[in-house]
Amino acid sequence: MSVTDDTLAANAEFAAGFTGPATSPPARQVAVVACMDSRVDPLPILGLAVGDAHVIRNAGGLVTDDALRSVVISQRALGTREVIVMQHTKCGMATSTDTEFRAALREDTGVEPSWAPGFFPDIDDSVRAGIARVEGDPHVVSAAVRGFVYDVDTGALREVSS
Amino acid sequence: MSVTDDTLAANAEFAAGFTGPATSPPARQVAVVACMDSRVDPLPILGLAVGDAHVIRNAGGLVTDDALRSVVISQRALGTREVIVMQHTKCGMATSTDTEFRAALREDTGVEPSWAPGFFPDIDDSVRAGIARVEGDPHVVSAAVRGFVYDVDTGALREVSS
Repeated sequence: MSVTDDTLAANAEFAAGFTGPATSPPARQVAVVACMDSRVDPLPILGLAVGDAHVIRNAGGLVTDDALRSVVISQRALGTREVIVMQHTKCGMATSTDTEFRAALREDTGVEPSWAPGFFPDIDDSVRAGIARVEGDPHVVSAAVRGFVYDVDTGALREVSS
Repeated sequence: MSVTDDTLAANAEFAAGFTGPATSPPARQVAVVACMDSRVDPLPILGLAVGDAHVIRNAGGLVTDDALRSVVISQRALGTREVIVMQHTKCGMATSTDTEFRAALREDTGVEPSWAPGFFPDIDDSVRAGIARVEGDPHVVSAAVRGFVYDVDTGALREVSS
């Protein structure tokens, strides 16, 4: 049995107890950009419920082109108006560099990736860069964006001043 | 009070009840690619707990370059070995076209986006395209990938045959 098989079995139980659909436009009109990290579960951390928010996640919680794509669609197609950028302490993306990671990929596969890996030396600077990307994007409807660092050891958020 | 202020207040309660950190490498060694949709909460849908999985999310649950970046980092830096691509019924990304969305952005802002919006006409084909992108990527360590459509009205998963 693979983990994927296990999740399918677990989903049968989930569906049996399913209490009905939420509506599509996020009720709290907020989009969250967060890291894919297994320790980060954005909704409970932020006191949000299913149906409240769009949740965009990637390695690092970076405001990449793809995260911007998602934020723009979130705002224009489904009416969100605030953006929360939430990175976290002890992130793996702060433990190497793009140069090192690219070199390892080249060595191992013979091919460099087309994408920038996205490693960063300073978490606050990375959050600030994310905020700046949302604020500077010509396609967002609302640039009401704030940034936070989630502490994986305490569960607490710290706001990053921009 | 903004929604973001509310979430900060809610986080103080969350942190007060925080039961301690999980470890960083996902315990179940799985990465999930899912849509940002507010109705989709990947962990309970899949019977996974905090600490079990990397969760990558964007508009559509597409295997974009950025999602591939995240999967590759997930596998190479943190040891995941299975990938679940989970899109869902009634997705907003099936209700328009890239041409229409680009035209609306150009009309409204004068600037076309650098990114492809990612609208798709058929959900099964979109899941299959995501599977194929993981399988064809030179940098993934494990191409053990399966794809599903989550039914937002029933809570049930349906596997998409590749």
